Amino acid sequence: MPAATFVLPASLALQLLSGAAPAAKPATAPAATVKAVSPAYSQAVAEKLIGPALTEGHAYARLAELTDGIGPRLSGSAGAEAAVQWALRGFKADGVKGWTEPVKVPRWVRGEERGEVLASERTRGHPLSLIALGGSAPTAPDGLTAEVVEVDSLEALAALGDSVKGKIVFFNHTMSVPADYGRFAGLRGRGPAAAAKAGAAGALVRSLATASLRTPHTGSTRFEAGGPRIPAAAVSTEDADLLHRMLARGPVRVKVVLGCSELPEVESHNVVAEVRGREKPQEIVLISAHLDSWDVGTGAHDDGAGVAMVMEAARLIAKLPQAPRRTVRVVLFMNEEHGLHGARAYAEAHAAELSRHVAAMEMDSGGFRPIGINLRAGAGGQELVRPWLPPLVALGAGTFHEREAGGADLTPMIPARVPFFGVQVDVTRYFDYHHTMADTLDKVDPQDLARSTAAVAWMTYAMAEMPGTLARPEAPATPPGPPALVPQSKASGQ
Amino acid sequence: MPAATFVLPASLALQLLSGAAPAAKPATAPAATVKAVSPAYSQAVAEKLIGPALTEGHAYARLAELTDGIGPRLSGSAGAEAAVQWALRGFKADGVKGWTEPVKVPRWVRGEERGEVLASERTRGHPLSLIALGGSAPTAPDGLTAEVVEVDSLEALAALGDSVKGKIVFFNHTMSVPADYGRFAGLRGRGPAAAAKAGAAGALVRSLATASLRTPHTGSTRFEAGGPRIPAAAVSTEDADLLHRMLARGPVRVKVVLGCSELPEVESHNVVAEVRGREKPQEIVLISAHLDSWDVGTGAHDDGAGVAMVMEAARLIAKLPQAPRRTVRVVLFMNEEHGLHGARAYAEAHAAELSRHVAAMEMDSGGFRPIGINLRAGAGGQELVRPWLPPLVALGAGTFHEREAGGADLTPMIPARVPFFGVQVDVTRYFDYHHTMADTLDKVDPQDLARSTAAVAWMTYAMAEMPGTLARPEAPATPPGPPALVPQSKASGQ
Repeated sequence: MPAATFVLPASLALQLLSGAAPAAKPATAPAATVKAVSPAYSQAVAEKLIGPALTEGHAYARLAELTDGIGPRLSGSAGAEAAVQWALRGFKADGVKGWTEPVKVPRWVRGEERGEVLASERTRGHPLSLIALGGSAPTAPDGLTAEVVEVDSLEALAALGDSVKGKIVFFNHTMSVPADYGRFAGLRGRGPAAAAKAGAAGALVRSLATASLRTPHTGSTRFEAGGPRIPAAAVSTEDADLLHRMLARGPVRVKVVLGCSELPEVESHNVVAEVRGREKPQEIVLISAHLDSWDVGTGAHDDGAGVAMVMEAARLIAKLPQAPRRTVRVVLFMNEEHGLHGARAYAEAHAAELSRHVAAMEMDSGGFRPIGINLRAGAGGQELVRPWLPPLVALGAGTFHEREAGGADLTPMIPARVPFFGVQVDVTRYFDYHHTMADTLDKVDPQDLARSTAAVAWMTYAMAEMPGTLARPEAPATPPGPPALVPQSKASGQ
Repeated sequence: MPAATFVLPASLALQLLSGAAPAAKPATAPAATVKAVSPAYSQAVAEKLIGPALTEGHAYARLAELTDGIGPRLSGSAGAEAAVQWALRGFKADGVKGWTEPVKVPRWVRGEERGEVLASERTRGHPLSLIALGGSAPTAPDGLTAEVVEVDSLEALAALGDSVKGKIVFFNHTMSVPADYGRFAGLRGRGPAAAAKAGAAGALVRSLATASLRTPHTGSTRFEAGGPRIPAAAVSTEDADLLHRMLARGPVRVKVVLGCSELPEVESHNVVAEVRGREKPQEIVLISAHLDSWDVGTGAHDDGAGVAMVMEAARLIAKLPQAPRRTVRVVLFMNEEHGLHGARAYAEAHAAELSRHVAAMEMDSGGFRPIGINLRAGAGGQELVRPWLPPLVALGAGTFHEREAGGADLTPMIPARVPFFGVQVDVTRYFDYHHTMADTLDKVDPQDLARSTAAVAWMTYAMAEMPGTLARPEAPATPPGPPALVPQSKASGQ
């Protein structure tokens, strides 16, 4: 069994780290110097979860099916519905009981999109590399032509008053590292609505990117119900730099054509699956990811990787000789990217049992290597979990990460004080690809995905098997506002 | 003067490196331990060339004018003609006598372009990120739909015989570092013609790239006069990987729509300018770059940077109190990218004086930091040039680079045994941007451009001022073939 050959050195290393005696300790070892401590967990189970996750390549193969076979999965699209059926088939093949739960989702559809800097005495003009933001209004069929006004914050926009009337507001910023995403994502999420209220005719937002080859990054923008809606697109960082340079030299006019449209809401689904607990089936450890993606690229990191990880964790746990103490429930949320309708539908449908959700995780930061464990729980969480960490040491994830656990789709569970846990991955390169046509399978390293999958499987088992449960965190002083457009798990990189 | 403040420490350092006494040597220094050696060159001139190149930012400002102001410059286009006029104005403003020389150039025009992997039982289908190759034939208006056959070499294509008839040949390869460009560029340059001769209906070529965010790289492809011409496009490396994965699972059909067209040749121009030599004006040191670019991006690295460097070198040399011994001639070639017509026109028009071209350089590997000096000359070249290198030490370019000097536009001068020289730049990132829409000003580091410009200015002066001239290299055993589609200066990275 490949699992055994892999796990042996790792488990030896972990035993040594934890002070336990190696299984094959030579008879001549001075017994007095080695303290025999039984680990908190079954090493046989650790081998059966981590070994296959690292050696079988099952999660990566599944990710290839989802990305190459299904492709983009914007909520409300045929791709999203195909993904729902694919996930159901996958759970069935894995021997994990799965079902769907209904979710009404918006149906925003991309159309033609192009733009240009118009010629002036200072330039012969330039095409703009842009992409409509999800939720954007369309332009008139022959486009929107207007002067550009640059701002770097919502405050700067407010200071301009109604001088932006009829203009295109250009939200520029200085994102350079993943941790900047949280700082600037509000420009994309709320900037166009603020510009619309001030009378602007359109909005352009610098892509939220840490690398670019003229690659624009889409994402959701939100207009108030009944409020004004305007065309809103992201431009590549290169085009943002160009606009900035040209605006330093004089007035700039651009033309933008966006053919997107908002169709009536459609019925879609969360996919839910369970491995029923052997002792406390009423206690639920929820592990999740989101099945929808943006409509460009194939959502390999965002969030195909998370889907592959949690499905594989469930598959491996279902194959154990005995189920863990508690129920492991997988939720593949629909519509994380463009409204969080799936998250809210789940929280509403399962409101009565949220008090029995003893831990919840969403994997939604890409299929990168694991670097630690996140928690969001009441007092004593780390002490409870620490004895279960040794199997993660050789994966690079055997310590706690400073970032609090979370996930956009978990937000509606915060008022119910559900404890969160997570496997932190290395997000250094995440925003190179995030929400672009370049979020494709080739960007996911099979080794990294296997290691994170192993960590997810083990942490899920740990939460479902450990004798106690995490203390529930305090309820927030103010209830969470409208669904975060900045997923918690993405709010700060490292 | 900023120049003086910069140059002082550098020239001190160089004097020490070369063993010369510092200008401000303290009277108490033990004279016996310091050997006074006069440098081969005037340090005052070195200061007047290198100081301003490093401190005034003139080359970068000029590159901004060319890229932001003029934009793309595909030969035969309005942008190319605007660049000709811009260059003439620039030389005039610099006090450098400039003129145009006629060149007939092809006029190939990009049209609509899109493609898709068609749905099958293994996939819901995928859009392809592709870009027509320069010289491609168009498809029928409703596109070309055919099965894909993958090959990794021209030999592999030949081995398939006429089994490729009616199919789309997909040239895949393993480029990962700049040095691979020379190995694989033949697949782009000659692959489609070979596929056409074998009866293929179209060709797709994996982009020649060292980084990708789904960014396809264009470039020239060549069909034989009177031979069959087919639609030919580059796909991004991601799409090449996708095709490769899908072909491993079964047959793949794609649809490609290319609306490009080949219009009649048009009159264009090389731009030539001169600083006349003070003693041997009949001896010519030619420094060059190419004014045309691809039609996507703004040709910032390829080859706006080279244009900015050689124009700035001429400007600074023209400002010296006295002209160098020989004539410095700048040539901004037209149509390097898509036929080398400007290079051939120059060599033909100046055939009678090529024997008086004592050295020639083309800067065409991007605006990166300088890392050494290239030569291609007869015996004794390095010995002749070495005494002139000390001013380049602090720029990082004070040694000879193993790569032979060259440049696509210099190729027609090889039979006349013109010696070549060059400033080698660090091409590590060149093929991330080369021939893409991402070859834009933001990719050029002003510091790096300034340093390479300084090295170009100094080496040009050295060639025009040194007492002797480079021995002429041996004539090649076989005359150079058709103009290289792989520029010598790009044939191997490092």
